[in-house]
Amino acid sequence: MRIALDAMGGDHAPGPIVAGAVEAVHDQPGLTVVLVGDRDRIEAELAKAPQADLDRLPIVHASQVVGMEEKPVEALRKKRDNSISKCWGLMATGDVKAVVSAGNTGAMVGSALFNNKMFLPGVRRPGIAAIFPSHQGPIVLIDVGANMNAKAEDLYQYGVMGSIYAETILGVSEPKIGLLNVGTEDDKGTDLTKSTRAIYQKSPLAHRFIGNVEGRDIYEGHAHVVVCEGFVGNVLLKAGEGAVDFLFATLKQEMARLMSVVPAESGQAMASGLSALKSRFEYQEFGGAPLLGIRGACIICHGASGDRAIKNAIRVASTMADDKLNALIVEQIAAGHIAES
Amino acid sequence: MRIALDAMGGDHAPGPIVAGAVEAVHDQPGLTVVLVGDRDRIEAELAKAPQADLDRLPIVHASQVVGMEEKPVEALRKKRDNSISKCWGLMATGDVKAVVSAGNTGAMVGSALFNNKMFLPGVRRPGIAAIFPSHQGPIVLIDVGANMNAKAEDLYQYGVMGSIYAETILGVSEPKIGLLNVGTEDDKGTDLTKSTRAIYQKSPLAHRFIGNVEGRDIYEGHAHVVVCEGFVGNVLLKAGEGAVDFLFATLKQEMARLMSVVPAESGQAMASGLSALKSRFEYQEFGGAPLLGIRGACIICHGASGDRAIKNAIRVASTMADDKLNALIVEQIAAGHIAES
Repeated sequence: MRIALDAMGGDHAPGPIVAGAVEAVHDQPGLTVVLVGDRDRIEAELAKAPQADLDRLPIVHASQVVGMEEKPVEALRKKRDNSISKCWGLMATGDVKAVVSAGNTGAMVGSALFNNKMFLPGVRRPGIAAIFPSHQGPIVLIDVGANMNAKAEDLYQYGVMGSIYAETILGVSEPKIGLLNVGTEDDKGTDLTKSTRAIYQKSPLAHRFIGNVEGRDIYEGHAHVVVCEGFVGNVLLKAGEGAVDFLFATLKQEMARLMSVVPAESGQAMASGLSALKSRFEYQEFGGAPLLGIRGACIICHGASGDRAIKNAIRVASTMADDKLNALIVEQIAAGHIAES
Repeated sequence: MRIALDAMGGDHAPGPIVAGAVEAVHDQPGLTVVLVGDRDRIEAELAKAPQADLDRLPIVHASQVVGMEEKPVEALRKKRDNSISKCWGLMATGDVKAVVSAGNTGAMVGSALFNNKMFLPGVRRPGIAAIFPSHQGPIVLIDVGANMNAKAEDLYQYGVMGSIYAETILGVSEPKIGLLNVGTEDDKGTDLTKSTRAIYQKSPLAHRFIGNVEGRDIYEGHAHVVVCEGFVGNVLLKAGEGAVDFLFATLKQEMARLMSVVPAESGQAMASGLSALKSRFEYQEFGGAPLLGIRGACIICHGASGDRAIKNAIRVASTMADDKLNALIVEQIAAGHIAES
């Protein structure tokens, strides 16, 4: 398995990105991670890891980087030798089976969407899936920002693709699909939600479609796949991050106050409990968001990703490619339904 | 000040609803709360509060109730003598200056929107404002569900109305306005966000408009008023509730584990700290969401509202009516801008 990693993408690249790749190839014997980016800087990072298996960490030089805040379309046009486009180039030629980047999300998606030869047969528009925690374990929210003009047919295909992801990667059998809406009644929502609902109900997925779900239902976990348009999903994903940060910042203040009134060892137990808890809410564990509907596998990581997040993203990317997830997507999109398992 | 309270609206009505009214009139000398609903059941609740000042708690009988899960439009048509419509009737005749309900939100909004004579002059569509916590204190998110087909002009008016609410009720001077979007760059988002942005930039509000804000920025608090379409706002509001519930449920499990390893008094300190913290995130403190853009004041409370939430909602409703908030809205919508303060 060969995977291309955008070594220059991320708030702290290339340090933690290269470190994550070193750990990933150490953990997975058959894996090669192609490090794409500035050769000198990547070599400097590799030199810090004398245990690294350099044979499985080849470098492909790219002289340019798309900045995290740059306008994607413009940057991709002006910087022809950027690391993201080069990763996709390796995928287009079949040199790698997956692409992983913690860089500019717009540029990652833009590179994939520019060339609709990268779309899987039958797929209208690729979608980004994000993993949310819930009372019942992790669930999939799709789309979180690849498509700003979703049609009902797109939202149907997101349900197909999200379900296959939930089954093959999260291990959920017969995942239930919910349509994000402002109420559970049939006639709630917009023209888009109404027509999407109609498509699901007439489709062979009808028996797994649980209808409308509301914002709070995401965390209940009754739907394993929650379908929404990219604008809403993106806002939700980022608001969720903001809420967790805000809550833990407030908790930390409260803890500081408690620390002064409880014995030291209790304080330490609390602090370590809190930190263990926070990790359950962090994107690091989930390893990033897959872009579904393209040839090959693609994982988009959070800009702040550390080495653990990158290592996990590489693991998920190689599983996605291994599991023939795309073959299932093509088959079930063509059949217009998810086959009974 | 006379306020109509839907005594039958809410998951646990009429008990905590009537109790909240009793507390509210006790706290505010000049206040009369008209209790609208089933006379016998309201009287039974009032009998449990012998200290209640019954002169300021008159009852207006309504024989029917719109259920929390009923389809609003249908219910309003079939149940002519329902408590929500009767509350609005009291407002239409000028008998009360405000309406408060923890009942069916769709019916509350529907009753107001059915009759556009209830709209303030110049207001295109009323919007529901919700109060979110942030690192900088409470902020206003508008609209959270009154309008499922918002136009750019609606989102502009929501900024005007939300700002006046932030100034007069939350005490924020010169509130900054942000447009909820999927990125901060100018060209991000949908046709709606692009045209909304253009209106703000050409408007006299331009100096307070900070442009696009993302989901996580809501909790940062740099924008005091965050404007979005009703679908997105509604999903965000409910997802925020779900996230807080989920997080505290997980925290509670972690606490239970910690309890067994720390001394009893530390455990108690932690438990009370946690419960104080949770209250900072609860809707009870904010007293509900105002429907802005209508004649009179209207507060829509959470279905699970207890007496404290109802008391707070009544307080906010009477402040809104007192503060001549609506006169400001009419004036500034007519002027097309918020006057310099």
